[in-house]
Amino acid sequence: MTIPKDKLLRSEELGEYVTNMFATNMPFIDLLGMKMIYQGTERAEVHLPWKDNLMGNPIQKVLHGGVTAAILDTVGGLMAILHAVAEMDNVTLEEFHHRVGKMSTIDMRIDYLRPGKGEKFIATAEVIRKGSRVAVCRMELHNESGTHIAFGTGTYMIA
Amino acid sequence: MTIPKDKLLRSEELGEYVTNMFATNMPFIDLLGMKMIYQGTERAEVHLPWKDNLMGNPIQKVLHGGVTAAILDTVGGLMAILHAVAEMDNVTLEEFHHRVGKMSTIDMRIDYLRPGKGEKFIATAEVIRKGSRVAVCRMELHNESGTHIAFGTGTYMIA
Amino acid sequence: MTIPKDKLLRSEELGEYVTNMFATNMPFIDLLGMKMIYQGTERAEVHLPWKDNLMGNPIQKVLHGGVTAAILDTVGGLMAILHAVAEMDNVTLEEFHHRVGKMSTIDMRIDYLRPGKGEKFIATAEVIRKGSRVAVCRMELHNESGTHIAFGTGTYMIA
Amino acid sequence: MTIPKDKLLRSEELGEYVTNMFATNMPFIDLLGMKMIYQGTERAEVHLPWKDNLMGNPIQKVLHGGVTAAILDTVGGLMAILHAVAEMDNVTLEEFHHRVGKMSTIDMRIDYLRPGKGEKFIATAEVIRKGSRVAVCRMELHNESGTHIAFGTGTYMIA
Repeated sequence: MTIPKDKLLRSEELGEYVTNMFATNMPFIDLLGMKMIYQGTERAEVHLPWKDNLMGNPIQKVLHGGVTAAILDTVGGLMAILHAVAEMDNVTLEEFHHRVGKMSTIDMRIDYLRPGKGEKFIATAEVIRKGSRVAVCRMELHNESGTHIAFGTGTYMIA
Repeated sequence: MTIPKDKLLRSEELGEYVTNMFATNMPFIDLLGMKMIYQGTERAEVHLPWKDNLMGNPIQKVLHGGVTAAILDTVGGLMAILHAVAEMDNVTLEEFHHRVGKMSTIDMRIDYLRPGKGEKFIATAEVIRKGSRVAVCRMELHNESGTHIAFGTGTYMIA
Repeated sequence: MTIPKDKLLRSEELGEYVTNMFATNMPFIDLLGMKMIYQGTERAEVHLPWKDNLMGNPIQKVLHGGVTAAILDTVGGLMAILHAVAEMDNVTLEEFHHRVGKMSTIDMRIDYLRPGKGEKFIATAEVIRKGSRVAVCRMELHNESGTHIAFGTGTYMIA
Repeated sequence: MTIPKDKLLRSEELGEYVTNMFATNMPFIDLLGMKMIYQGTERAEVHLPWKDNLMGNPIQKVLHGGVTAAILDTVGGLMAILHAVAEMDNVTLEEFHHRVGKMSTIDMRIDYLRPGKGEKFIATAEVIRKGSRVAVCRMELHNESGTHIAFGTGTYMIA
């Protein structure tokens, strides 16, 4: 996907672009094997297939707590950017990157509800506090059978 | 290190054993390249050398927020187990594993203070709420120059 | 409500008893004007009518953030006890008080979503992580028109 | 303290002014009996003498968890404003109020370390993440003997 630097992009196009950027441009996301699923700018979704090197305790065969935190931070951060993107329209990539460069996680809470067992994990996020500078997202992690593994709450600087 | 199953271990020996178990037995810790540093049962320390595949945003060349969360959860969890171990004495490995099997993170908060830039990262933890069933740990992440990158607080089930 | 000390109480009776105890026996709950609403052992609800002395900033005429935290801690703590009570049956008051004496909040996170404006505030809670020793509750605060004011998450020692 | 609306105030004067405003102008702070202690713009301190109506559980004779949350939110919020004030100089009260009107708590975590027993409680705060729009504060609550009762972390919108 090559987009001319000065093309004016609609909110939808920016949403797809940023989701694709997460998928292809962030080495740690690739190391874990996360897949970004674009679903518009109102909701974010990230998938993670089980791999043995994501294990914490090998006796229990469950995800390391850090993997859970990493996928929840990723889906929350993606959601926060999509929320910012939803307000943008007719923006060039250059202007968009100028804004994205300042985005960062301020804080995050993870509640571990059940052991991270499964073959595939699905993380979702939605915005619970909207703002032009700060967005607060609520995140959830389920496995392929719908077992609820963890809750997250993240506060993100978006401008 | 092979220890007979029925040998009675002192607190110090268990501390070294569990630190070594984290180092050699947890695939995700290995994937990231974390090193466990044993320093007795009062304080936990984990080191992480920079690797390009730990990056989030490649423009900024900083740690992905999930890496920060993962190393803080690891050092906090190790600290919580060491705290439990400090109360154990003359315990066999079998009994020890029986107890460790129930340990888990209940919740964790991360405060991201500064971008995760550096060549080596040092995570430390101490216990702020002691208990026989639940321990609360305070964690910190610094880089090799002493820049303070993140704070963490984790609540761990230890029995 | 006078209950003989050695009477064996069912879970339902204990639930009503503990809700009543919160309502009549906790001076701070009375100072703020909170009303405990008993709804069985699966869900907790606390109401708070607006009073001028609950204000933080008088220009905005909104609840002080500490009031929001206090009502969410109260409804979460009540929920955690009700959850423990749901597992008890044929228990005397003496035994019940022996257990309740050890209950305490370990940690709590509040997310302030919107200014605390309204004439009456409704706090609700449910358990998201069940356990015999620790329960994690999710709490919400709304006003009388259904405006969502705050989220809370609390980790409670229940035994 | 009457200050002409168009007088240009120095950072120090604004710090004293805002501390005084918390003390005299916030009904809930008065209801609990908190005292604001001005100590410059680098550190905030709030005192709270014990009163029976701040009790949660009357058997244990300890502060209700909501009181702890309220005083920590107050000292953290004061600190966040003082931090913003430290960057202001030659500002009129009108301009100052225009900015303060937008300040609010985004989220807060409380870690309850020990029962809130004592005759007088001292809450302190410092800024751990500085920014022009968002400040993150670390708060602590001790009693008059130096017993550490609680930790807090709060994220505040300051512009």
